[in-house]
Amino acid sequence: MKRILKYSLLFLILALMACNGKQPQSAEEQKAKPLFPKGTVITSNNFSGTVWLQMFVSNDTTYNASIGNVTFEPKARTNWHKHPGGQILLVTEGKGWYQEKGKTAQRIQKGDVVKIPPDAEHWHGASSESGLTHIAISLSTDKGGAIWLQPVTNEEYNNIEK
Amino acid sequence: MKRILKYSLLFLILALMACNGKQPQSAEEQKAKPLFPKGTVITSNNFSGTVWLQMFVSNDTTYNASIGNVTFEPKARTNWHKHPGGQILLVTEGKGWYQEKGKTAQRIQKGDVVKIPPDAEHWHGASSESGLTHIAISLSTDKGGAIWLQPVTNEEYNNIEK
Repeated sequence: MKRILKYSLLFLILALMACNGKQPQSAEEQKAKPLFPKGTVITSNNFSGTVWLQMFVSNDTTYNASIGNVTFEPKARTNWHKHPGGQILLVTEGKGWYQEKGKTAQRIQKGDVVKIPPDAEHWHGASSESGLTHIAISLSTDKGGAIWLQPVTNEEYNNIEK
Repeated sequence: MKRILKYSLLFLILALMACNGKQPQSAEEQKAKPLFPKGTVITSNNFSGTVWLQMFVSNDTTYNASIGNVTFEPKARTNWHKHPGGQILLVTEGKGWYQEKGKTAQRIQKGDVVKIPPDAEHWHGASSESGLTHIAISLSTDKGGAIWLQPVTNEEYNNIEK
């Protein structure tokens, strides 16, 4: 009986070693490397919480646009603001919120595309339980950059998640 | 000895069943669900090989841009062409090529950002061994849409991979 257990244990160890070797990259390992660089933390009063920015195209006269990768930690968000030329958000990771003034906040998540009309007052950011990463494409920047307004208060933010 | 083998085999099967259950989503399973919709196959002489397109923003006066998700099967590519307002490519999957007229072709891959100046004659597409997916952002489309030129011949394409 001892020999049976000894051999069985040997097979068990070999089998587990074998299947460990075959394991594909875990979800955690893949999350560790974002699709586009996270960039650096934004130090600005136009945001609440920790937000990272990696610019791809800085506002210039060649492309007449501003394109960057924005990453919000859970609960982090923009102030209310508007874009004279409008903006498109392409959500590449996580979950969050988009709200236009006077409208109900919309849940947004990986794979969503948000079209923000020119001069529409709005905010966007992460949900309380998940971070959010989106590419932000600001268009016709010759009409002007973002016009920043008041912060989204904790009361406003907490109410949408009720 | 027979009993030893019987028990060992039993342990082996149990161990393999156990580790199968623990396996995270495989690379193949994840590839099956792209970040953004693949859209539909383009039927146009401006492309070689099979190319899929999902538009996010069709050229309109509101955003003055055209934004879409483009997926190339291996070896598939655009014709030579140019954009009066310029274009930005954000590579989200796979490997491929970008070449401007008179310059050496550049390898591009997941995570790369390509800035195509206004009126620069160029082409982009997949490598021979991998597909390519990129978001294409055409800017200042009020200056006009893409101007399509001659195909990238097999001779041109095969030469860059030498």
